[in-house]
Amino acid sequence: MGRIEAIKKYLEENEVEAALITSAPNLLYFTNAAPLVGGYLVVTLEEETLLVPELEYEQAKEEARVSVEKFKKMDELYEYLKRFKSLAVEGNMSISFQNALKEKAGVKEFKLLDDVIKELRMIKSEGEIKLIEDACRLADIGVMTAIEEISEGKREKEIAAKVEYVMKLEGAEKPAFDTIIASGYRSALPHGVASDKRIEKGDLVVIDLGALYRHYNSDITRTIFVGTPNEKQKEIYEIVLEAQKKAVEAAKPGMTAKELDSVARKVIEEYGYGDKFIHSLGHGIGLQVHEWPRVSQQDETVLKEGMVITIEPGIYIPKFGGVRIEDTVVITKNGAKRLTKTDRELI
Amino acid sequence: MGRIEAIKKYLEENEVEAALITSAPNLLYFTNAAPLVGGYLVVTLEEETLLVPELEYEQAKEEARVSVEKFKKMDELYEYLKRFKSLAVEGNMSISFQNALKEKAGVKEFKLLDDVIKELRMIKSEGEIKLIEDACRLADIGVMTAIEEISEGKREKEIAAKVEYVMKLEGAEKPAFDTIIASGYRSALPHGVASDKRIEKGDLVVIDLGALYRHYNSDITRTIFVGTPNEKQKEIYEIVLEAQKKAVEAAKPGMTAKELDSVARKVIEEYGYGDKFIHSLGHGIGLQVHEWPRVSQQDETVLKEGMVITIEPGIYIPKFGGVRIEDTVVITKNGAKRLTKTDRELI
Repeated sequence: MGRIEAIKKYLEENEVEAALITSAPNLLYFTNAAPLVGGYLVVTLEEETLLVPELEYEQAKEEARVSVEKFKKMDELYEYLKRFKSLAVEGNMSISFQNALKEKAGVKEFKLLDDVIKELRMIKSEGEIKLIEDACRLADIGVMTAIEEISEGKREKEIAAKVEYVMKLEGAEKPAFDTIIASGYRSALPHGVASDKRIEKGDLVVIDLGALYRHYNSDITRTIFVGTPNEKQKEIYEIVLEAQKKAVEAAKPGMTAKELDSVARKVIEEYGYGDKFIHSLGHGIGLQVHEWPRVSQQDETVLKEGMVITIEPGIYIPKFGGVRIEDTVVITKNGAKRLTKTDRELI
Repeated sequence: MGRIEAIKKYLEENEVEAALITSAPNLLYFTNAAPLVGGYLVVTLEEETLLVPELEYEQAKEEARVSVEKFKKMDELYEYLKRFKSLAVEGNMSISFQNALKEKAGVKEFKLLDDVIKELRMIKSEGEIKLIEDACRLADIGVMTAIEEISEGKREKEIAAKVEYVMKLEGAEKPAFDTIIASGYRSALPHGVASDKRIEKGDLVVIDLGALYRHYNSDITRTIFVGTPNEKQKEIYEIVLEAQKKAVEAAKPGMTAKELDSVARKVIEEYGYGDKFIHSLGHGIGLQVHEWPRVSQQDETVLKEGMVITIEPGIYIPKFGGVRIEDTVVITKNGAKRLTKTDRELI
């Protein structure tokens, strides 16, 4: 079933007059247009129309595979929407906008489209997997660049700047998220975005980055040492590596996201570091860096062919440092296939 | 009055038990912490507490000037919030999260904090203006880099990549938004983010970029020519330049945002291009690239000392090309002071 058709099926089954889609990734998913300031996709059983502010009109017409109309003021949009008493919307719609739809467009009933969109977007098409693979190739280049650039005395930010520059020259639109270069004590911060700290001898350095390529994201983490690792650094590296490899080997259609999280978590727990693995094993990735499923103890989603997820166990010891190793993988009928390919044996 | 005190005054006057703040710029504004995955600032008349997921805890404690607590699952957060029957929240809260607060935390009544936050954030402190000034200096470096790099045959994206790299080496955290390098027919797209198009002789090139520096944004646009401009290119450049200069000269405390928009709009209308100036004159800028006031025909906000806005008229002729000239300015008692300083006479 096509993407828009799935929305129409929802409208029919739930007796809702129209769907209104406004978030950037979903606009792109359903229309192929990427209006920057805002866009409003209205889907009814009969037709689908993208409404955009005037300054987005030319660009949206070029990109969209649905019909495009323009409006000058938000009031015109509300006027247009007055024909609908019930709307299916996204859960990330703001409460202010919902209030405006109630007051200015007279919408009486709201339903949430999230489940139908989630089911669609979780399973990537071949075309989407190809784009994520391209984004992963760029992330591999990013990690390689970081490894080459990291040396005693350099600032984390300098390294991140170089990594991002090289990824862009190779075709990335931008980093998928703020590049993490977290060295020394900062490696114990799971989200240690590159700072002015200088790399020192003896530092663990967590490199966590991704590339955005034609709207699709990639995500990879590697951890390296500057100089010779001490026993404890080596120990936690080996544990995280074992946990990551076992999870990648175990991932397959039919198991739940929670079960996959447990594979890695058990390894780390058995070595006594369970309380230092303070986040979930991974997350779906695609048009957004974090999407469904969540590979966590809270998510019972059954893994299926075509899902793309990250597998990224870590151990974080405050003030001492941390290690994380992550790949983006696609679930195939034969198990997980790594889309990020940089060597994981880096000590 | 302090920032948190203004929230407390709101709670008292409106008889609301607590405020819950969750958006990244407001968390930063009120706590100085920048949790990446999520943070929840709870303000009551007695105290203020920032709740963060476990993996953000160490970093938040380092940064925050309020007390920090951690939670493992969202259910713990809902449990914590059960003590409140009424909450003042931000209008950009998602309807899903609001539903969860109703169902899982039993919150009965919601009020919107937006007006009190808007009034606070619109007037920048001296410290904030200093940071925006630094961000503007980086944007000037970005434009200078673009002007040096632009030449026949280069791809727009290559130029954007170099600009962003240089701004980062000079201290920017990242671009404030996707760098626009829009050449030739693409210059007629107000949001023509750099593409694979190569620069050609005779192109108008719109350069619109900004830098993020210690969480504050800057925004500047310059338009240049490759080769010798023709008569029409020169004409629209001169009109936009005149409109921009007149608006910068006119801006002062006491006038409304709408009146300022009209200053530039009239110039462009008098030359017969009114229907080609298809966006508002500008926008407030600070922790966000687009904030209050909107310098548009719809915004009657009275300009005050300490407001930081952009002034950016443009003319866009589909398929022919476009011109936009923009500065970030601060409103002082003596009028607008330009914080971006690159020369505007570029033809």
